[in-house]
Amino acid sequence: MKGPISPSQIDHIGIAVRSLEEALPLYTRVLGLELKGMEEVETEQVRVAFLRIGETNIELLEPASPESPIARFLEKKGEGIHHIALRVEAIEENLEYLSQNGIRLIHEQPKRGAHGSRIAFLHPKSTQGVLYELCQSQARDE
Amino acid sequence: MKGPISPSQIDHIGIAVRSLEEALPLYTRVLGLELKGMEEVETEQVRVAFLRIGETNIELLEPASPESPIARFLEKKGEGIHHIALRVEAIEENLEYLSQNGIRLIHEQPKRGAHGSRIAFLHPKSTQGVLYELCQSQARDE
Repeated sequence: MKGPISPSQIDHIGIAVRSLEEALPLYTRVLGLELKGMEEVETEQVRVAFLRIGETNIELLEPASPESPIARFLEKKGEGIHHIALRVEAIEENLEYLSQNGIRLIHEQPKRGAHGSRIAFLHPKSTQGVLYELCQSQARDE
Repeated sequence: MKGPISPSQIDHIGIAVRSLEEALPLYTRVLGLELKGMEEVETEQVRVAFLRIGETNIELLEPASPESPIARFLEKKGEGIHHIALRVEAIEENLEYLSQNGIRLIHEQPKRGAHGSRIAFLHPKSTQGVLYELCQSQARDE
């Protein structure tokens, strides 16, 4: 029987921005973080920039279309922190455990995230207002 | 001349909750994170619980009085992610550098945070809606 999900680390923190181009100088020039890469994630209709900080990453998210979940977030709340991604193994088992323990899932099954990772979001109504993502990475740092 | 602040890691992520008692079971029992400690931070009028995750921490923040900044945050926005703390050295120099580079500071001088750390917040209007804290830790893991 699966126990608590025990994420090994924060995989990344997702931050919604209107424009990567306008947001990046703060992160690279002023904060001095390393830009690891940029990518378009079609399933989420976002353009993403990854900045390394210690063992984790800041993921800047710019909407790639007006129907993107990030476009709707920006419209409703403005720019700011969007989600926290917890790095896990065995994402399906963890989703099942969470569901059995009263956590509402946005995605019952993992879908494709950046870098070929598999991701699923938990509903903030069951996690005190925080949008958590489970993220099973392909080993991207190796 | 001081360059970019180059934080070594995320020191912690601050999450505003109405009640530590109600919030903690999600973090300890369901997510399986280690509760490192609890503390009252008088300068911020908050009760804080720290949960370790990888090299960083989730810091749950419960208002200790109705005048607490966290009480005002809860009133306005509800429970959720409050801030991201960047671990730095030489916090005064970094604040000066940020100020010279167009970042508006909430605290011009560091004040006392949890565990005897020295902290200062940056204004989210100059950081695309994200409330960043600079945090110069006393070595709390040693």
